[in-house]
Amino acid sequence: MNVSDLYSNLESDLAYVETQLNHQLSSIQPILEETSLHLLQAGGKRLRPVFVLLSGTFGSYDREKLTRAAVALELIHMATLVHDDVVDNADTRRGRPTVKANYGNRMAMYTGDFIFAQALSVLSEIPNIEMHKKLSMAIERMSVGEIEQIHDLYNFQQSMRKYLVRIRRKTALLIEMSCMLGGVVSGANPSYVNALRRFGYHAGMAFQITDDLLDFTASEEKLGKPVGSDLRQGNITAPTLFALRDSQVGDQLRNLLAETVTGGGFARPDRMEQILALIKSSKGMQCAQEMADRYLQKANDALMLLPATEERYTLLAMSKFISRRDH
Amino acid sequence: MNVSDLYSNLESDLAYVETQLNHQLSSIQPILEETSLHLLQAGGKRLRPVFVLLSGTFGSYDREKLTRAAVALELIHMATLVHDDVVDNADTRRGRPTVKANYGNRMAMYTGDFIFAQALSVLSEIPNIEMHKKLSMAIERMSVGEIEQIHDLYNFQQSMRKYLVRIRRKTALLIEMSCMLGGVVSGANPSYVNALRRFGYHAGMAFQITDDLLDFTASEEKLGKPVGSDLRQGNITAPTLFALRDSQVGDQLRNLLAETVTGGGFARPDRMEQILALIKSSKGMQCAQEMADRYLQKANDALMLLPATEERYTLLAMSKFISRRDH
Repeated sequence: MNVSDLYSNLESDLAYVETQLNHQLSSIQPILEETSLHLLQAGGKRLRPVFVLLSGTFGSYDREKLTRAAVALELIHMATLVHDDVVDNADTRRGRPTVKANYGNRMAMYTGDFIFAQALSVLSEIPNIEMHKKLSMAIERMSVGEIEQIHDLYNFQQSMRKYLVRIRRKTALLIEMSCMLGGVVSGANPSYVNALRRFGYHAGMAFQITDDLLDFTASEEKLGKPVGSDLRQGNITAPTLFALRDSQVGDQLRNLLAETVTGGGFARPDRMEQILALIKSSKGMQCAQEMADRYLQKANDALMLLPATEERYTLLAMSKFISRRDH
Repeated sequence: MNVSDLYSNLESDLAYVETQLNHQLSSIQPILEETSLHLLQAGGKRLRPVFVLLSGTFGSYDREKLTRAAVALELIHMATLVHDDVVDNADTRRGRPTVKANYGNRMAMYTGDFIFAQALSVLSEIPNIEMHKKLSMAIERMSVGEIEQIHDLYNFQQSMRKYLVRIRRKTALLIEMSCMLGGVVSGANPSYVNALRRFGYHAGMAFQITDDLLDFTASEEKLGKPVGSDLRQGNITAPTLFALRDSQVGDQLRNLLAETVTGGGFARPDRMEQILALIKSSKGMQCAQEMADRYLQKANDALMLLPATEERYTLLAMSKFISRRDH
């Protein structure tokens, strides 16, 4: 089963969102059009548009208005993905950057800036100052989250709270905004908007914790990257933090990490398999799964404040699916 | 004489803008606060705020409203400066990026994103949908301009028109927006807003052409970077384009460049002094100066459509100053 089976009745509206995304990313600048449309055609689940559209059914559903919000939020999401790809280890040739390398990072950054500018352009069509305030605050927090994520790399002493704040900014905020905006744009009852916002927040948290678990458990084939990529890159997530608290393996893991990580990097990549195996054998996996489940439960509790429509059922099914998926 | 002497009567309002800029860049995230406040404290002419405030005098001057516009535009300007610093040739150690290098580019990019998000946050307080539309369109064009600038590097065959489109996006647009917004926010007469916009555009063009001339003529000490930095980095500006059209030295210059530039880079940096000398001896310098002067004249023509106030005189003096400056 595919997550899109859950919202097959949205198919034509999602196709319209896709057309509008294409339209927004068509540019008079050929390179820019190529880089950004390439990203668009690479696909993605379009979760944020789906949340916007489903949430919109709890007010008076207006396809045009909802599409604007959906397109803007997906563009913001895409812009952050492009910026996340900017890395520092560019190819150099004879001590000077190659043209290709020179185009690489800066092009990725400016492509992200362009996509973000297109999001603003779409948003500027929505005459709702409150929405602009909430969204700009969310965007600010997301950018703070990006910095925090770099700052916390390889920091095995960080608290669980820090991790949770980070994934809220990284993932949950934009899903929260998607659900909220769908409601706001449709003029839904404020108590429904609030329930949608709470649903989005909790579902987003469950989504990211599941993502962080899958980094340990899914196959390289399904993930499209090596197992344990997060940890290899110094990104410390729930399973590791819980494993460090595990009375059975916590001390051993701490010692291994202390021996292995120096100066903000893994000096002994050969030890990585051992470290990953230790975490996977610990209570960390189950604890992280339970934490995801608690967020999921709260997401579902929030849904109970909404009228029992077909779309409420779809939101419920989606949140279950995304936190029980295998990739 | 310093440009700030021209608008000494704005001193207290500019100090207020500075306070608000500081306030916006104070963050709960220490690294982010450090990087962005460092940039703020490095100074700058705050030309965009000055243009906003001066333009605001042609409507009903409201310090709070104008400060919001001034702060937002200066933050957008700062964000683009930070992103322009992102380069690809990072330090690597044993084939892997050092922590410092790893923090470098990504941190610069995310700092830019944060500053930009703060600009949006300030803008969201201004309840003027038309303004949001115009500004988001300007931001989009600016990002297209950034890509164009990379795309046109080392392209000596580019037309003068391409150069002009590029500097419009790079510099003139935001100055145009500053003058326009100052008028809009103050509810100035639409014909005044239009005159201010036209003034800003033409003054911005004159400003950038002058900047491009100074890259050849100013001393390294005054510029804070080597003479000819633009050309060394492949950024082709008006003096070079005019020099290539010069019947005396055009062919020689073209041959020298063809021999020197291969695969999008200067393969023979030792030839650079000769190339710079050739351009400086050509008619390119004078032609570029004359082009700046024509923009300046049009900027001044636009001012004549405004009432003859003290601030109109200041705008006139400023535009003259910035296109006749020596650094």
